[in-house]
Amino acid sequence: MCGDLRESHIDDEVVLFGWVAKHRDLGGMIFVDLRDRSGISQVRFHPHMGDEKFAEADSLRSEWCIGVKGKVVSRGDNANTEIPTGMVEVMATDIHIFSKSDTPPFLIREDTDANEMLRLEYRYLDLRREPLQEAMITRSRVNQIVRNYLCENGFLEFETPYLTRSTPEGARDYLVPSRVNPGKFYALPQSPQLFKQLLMVSGFDRYFQIVRCFRDEDLRADRQPEFTQIDMEMSFVTPDDVINICEGMVRAIFDDVLDVQLPSEFKRLSYEEAIERFGVDDPDLRFDLELVDISDEVADSDFRVFSGTVESGGAVKGICVPGGSDALSRKDIDALEDHAKVYGAKGLAWAKVKEDDWSGPISRFFDEEDRETIQAKFGAESGDLLLIVAADRKVANNSLGHLRDKLGDDLGLKVAGEFEFVWITEFPLFEYDEEEDQLHPMHHPFTSPRPQDFELLEGNPEAAYAQAYDLVLNGSEVGGGSIRIHRQEIQEKIFDILGFSEEEARDKFGFLMDAFQYGPPPHGGIAFGMDRLVSILTGRSNIRDVIAFPKTQKAADIMAGAPSTVGEDQLEELHLEVELDEEDD
Amino acid sequence: MCGDLRESHIDDEVVLFGWVAKHRDLGGMIFVDLRDRSGISQVRFHPHMGDEKFAEADSLRSEWCIGVKGKVVSRGDNANTEIPTGMVEVMATDIHIFSKSDTPPFLIREDTDANEMLRLEYRYLDLRREPLQEAMITRSRVNQIVRNYLCENGFLEFETPYLTRSTPEGARDYLVPSRVNPGKFYALPQSPQLFKQLLMVSGFDRYFQIVRCFRDEDLRADRQPEFTQIDMEMSFVTPDDVINICEGMVRAIFDDVLDVQLPSEFKRLSYEEAIERFGVDDPDLRFDLELVDISDEVADSDFRVFSGTVESGGAVKGICVPGGSDALSRKDIDALEDHAKVYGAKGLAWAKVKEDDWSGPISRFFDEEDRETIQAKFGAESGDLLLIVAADRKVANNSLGHLRDKLGDDLGLKVAGEFEFVWITEFPLFEYDEEEDQLHPMHHPFTSPRPQDFELLEGNPEAAYAQAYDLVLNGSEVGGGSIRIHRQEIQEKIFDILGFSEEEARDKFGFLMDAFQYGPPPHGGIAFGMDRLVSILTGRSNIRDVIAFPKTQKAADIMAGAPSTVGEDQLEELHLEVELDEEDD
Repeated sequence: MCGDLRESHIDDEVVLFGWVAKHRDLGGMIFVDLRDRSGISQVRFHPHMGDEKFAEADSLRSEWCIGVKGKVVSRGDNANTEIPTGMVEVMATDIHIFSKSDTPPFLIREDTDANEMLRLEYRYLDLRREPLQEAMITRSRVNQIVRNYLCENGFLEFETPYLTRSTPEGARDYLVPSRVNPGKFYALPQSPQLFKQLLMVSGFDRYFQIVRCFRDEDLRADRQPEFTQIDMEMSFVTPDDVINICEGMVRAIFDDVLDVQLPSEFKRLSYEEAIERFGVDDPDLRFDLELVDISDEVADSDFRVFSGTVESGGAVKGICVPGGSDALSRKDIDALEDHAKVYGAKGLAWAKVKEDDWSGPISRFFDEEDRETIQAKFGAESGDLLLIVAADRKVANNSLGHLRDKLGDDLGLKVAGEFEFVWITEFPLFEYDEEEDQLHPMHHPFTSPRPQDFELLEGNPEAAYAQAYDLVLNGSEVGGGSIRIHRQEIQEKIFDILGFSEEEARDKFGFLMDAFQYGPPPHGGIAFGMDRLVSILTGRSNIRDVIAFPKTQKAADIMAGAPSTVGEDQLEELHLEVELDEEDD
Repeated sequence: MCGDLRESHIDDEVVLFGWVAKHRDLGGMIFVDLRDRSGISQVRFHPHMGDEKFAEADSLRSEWCIGVKGKVVSRGDNANTEIPTGMVEVMATDIHIFSKSDTPPFLIREDTDANEMLRLEYRYLDLRREPLQEAMITRSRVNQIVRNYLCENGFLEFETPYLTRSTPEGARDYLVPSRVNPGKFYALPQSPQLFKQLLMVSGFDRYFQIVRCFRDEDLRADRQPEFTQIDMEMSFVTPDDVINICEGMVRAIFDDVLDVQLPSEFKRLSYEEAIERFGVDDPDLRFDLELVDISDEVADSDFRVFSGTVESGGAVKGICVPGGSDALSRKDIDALEDHAKVYGAKGLAWAKVKEDDWSGPISRFFDEEDRETIQAKFGAESGDLLLIVAADRKVANNSLGHLRDKLGDDLGLKVAGEFEFVWITEFPLFEYDEEEDQLHPMHHPFTSPRPQDFELLEGNPEAAYAQAYDLVLNGSEVGGGSIRIHRQEIQEKIFDILGFSEEEARDKFGFLMDAFQYGPPPHGGIAFGMDRLVSILTGRSNIRDVIAFPKTQKAADIMAGAPSTVGEDQLEELHLEVELDEEDD
């Protein structure tokens, strides 16, 4: 292929197929950069190949699809050391033009300034660009590594239905009207959760699937209406069994794709520790900037914002930015404060640490002893910047967690090519929804409490912890799973706590409850977000860049023109009528 | 695992997890057949394991899920040579009951007489049965063999969208209403045809995907609303390139799964030859019974049914069943005639060949010379049975083709474990629909004519042949593909011939036409029916047996209860109203 030619091929006769990436006329000869998915080779056309052939070569334009035959020759002094094939070129003896090309709406090159909408409309051309070619090739490779690894470890690959039952798991379902069952609908699965649990009941022991999932949610930058999961489930396992399999899989991927050797054991943090130290449950561990709790140190402070917060049960926490006094301007700090406010902080107190003093608005409230105590707690030195939030503990952690994330960006601490994994464990089983005065599952309703917490379900379910584990990579959750409930009475208790009536539970999950009557094994599993994982592997910030035909934020495929209107006859067959509001029309 | 224990494990301490397949009390001890996906091991519980533990063992019932610890011991004289683990058993020292089981609605054993509806309702229990376990395990293995083979041959795995655009390819689409685009619908893909062709335009050269496809058709025994294809596409190829890749893939599957070595080159038949010799384009070549054309021999016959047919341009063809005079009774022949009539034959003439005569209703019309001429053409000998249809050529071929198929069943000629592959090539590009007075594509509208037939498109499209190829295994089409059109003007011509207006073509396939403006490569591909392939590999007659969670003939999942009614609020969000006829309600 075009990218394969080396000096060892000199004097070989070769046939290459590809696209004209560049063409130029030089000294009476035609030079063409011929491109295929493997790379680029230079092809030289000389008039002595024959008038007719040479005229064809002379007619070539960008993106024409051609075949050439010729001999590999050395480029000698004209070698191009920037590309792997640059030591040689093909001296063409024959040419065939498969098809011509209009001028593309944007240049097919690594860095294009064409806007994304245009590139999505002509996705088939955008996919010719090297970064997208590389992303697709990497994605294909990840698929194979995952499958080979899991099969070697005794997993069986399954296919679960895409036309299935609506079982609200939090997000909205995509529905599919049934023609032969008038008035009834299938739902596209948000995940194969119930089916993979049923396969454990069937005794298949180790299941996996690389599977499309569907959620009709309002889209954010990193969401797609259809997305891909590496989905796994195992019987007779502890959380450590699942974690070990996952670590092995991730190590195999990083070793193969990036030649990066990950540690033999990944870090672990309890949910509580993650929140206290990093403010969030998906911390980026490529940098420190840990949250420090100075509530005790400021409990008696003259600065009432701090002492008052502690008095009323809140927390005063902060981040020490080493060298931040110089690195961050007043304007930068204002921007950080704005960011903290988005997450509920009322304000951001700050102080620049100097040799014998602090500067900044709060410094006058703290005498030397106070300052030394606080600096000691932070481990702060002269030149550092302290950023402090006083609020209820949840808000303090959350706002500082996001502040820390922004600092990571602003200070360039998220180093490309560094990969920090951490398992978050010991999640609470439920989280409380104040608005609805209702407990919700922190993961999903099939997550098992720790065995020692079973009895808490009766009177104090909020205190129960889940046997759940999330895998976080560089601040993104890439995988999440749990040991599942396999005892019918526990599952029913959970549904009860979640506010499902017996009928609702029966209606939605009845077949799982039925299955649990017939000797279900203990089981657990996990699902990885394939799109996110590949985007991190390939250094893309947007998952659209690692999906062959992605959808826009409005859930549209603007190349294919989907969704689209359909014929009245189609709707009639489905027993449907569209009812548009005036504003929709 | 349970199926792994051998004499070499004697004295090993083992832990097994599984399900109680059988339990019996014998000589004061409990014997349990413990089953997991790998097989069965016998476990023996002796009272000296402790009262409490022994009582637990004594309480075991079928399908309880348990773990046991114990020592592998020889079964000595009590060895069971019928199962691979039968030389040993586990002398239990500990037991743990993970979960109990109600009495299953049917026995979990290889051959069950439970009806399929009950088994589908409790699919998770049916999947515990050995034939289904084996089918799922084989299917998983086929997946890996296919992927490894294709990746080794330079193919990239892609994922194409499931939420896409309605592009009628013959069958009805499943539609998915869009919430954020009121009044608009996605369609679930009938195949990723357009996307894989676009990936060729993007330069990915070799694409594959094991992909779900969706067709809202009225179901037959071997159809499912969602089914799985092994989907491939290649650039810069001839039909032979595609065929070679496919043969290699199929050889790898049969070698690995069945230890069957397929020939290094598969047979090939032109469409016309297949029809003339076997009556159908998907012949089962495990047996002969070829169609013989005796039109010339009977053109002047006294039997007017034959000579009249020939006179009016029809054909008289037949099958010689060796030894059929004794093997088939008058009743059998009547049943064969009924079968032929289903496919349009007006009747079935027959004659039993005797040493010097024929018996049967038509024999009196044929003198010795006639009989000898006809017998010579058939290669018939005494004791054979001749079955003859006189009709227009199409009906004669078709009815005899199906008659041949029934004979294959009736006479036990379809030998299990024999695998006869044949490529059918040189299909006509179009077939004529008399009712609509319209040409339809024999495959799909993207199939390329042979280059030498391009010019026929203008005045005589019916005479054009396609660059198409179907792979037939034991009388089932398991794969079908073609070289595609990559020239815009040819594709437009085809749409024109198929009766699409320019607007329709633009609306449905505009993005493919657009893509063809930018240097499309010549390309072609194929798709294999995974479900059918695995069903033949595992010797199942119904594809439902090789799908983990299949749907019924009414397109329902009776286990999950899909499709189902949904809430008014859900429909409102989708801007839909259900309109039931009275009879639907």
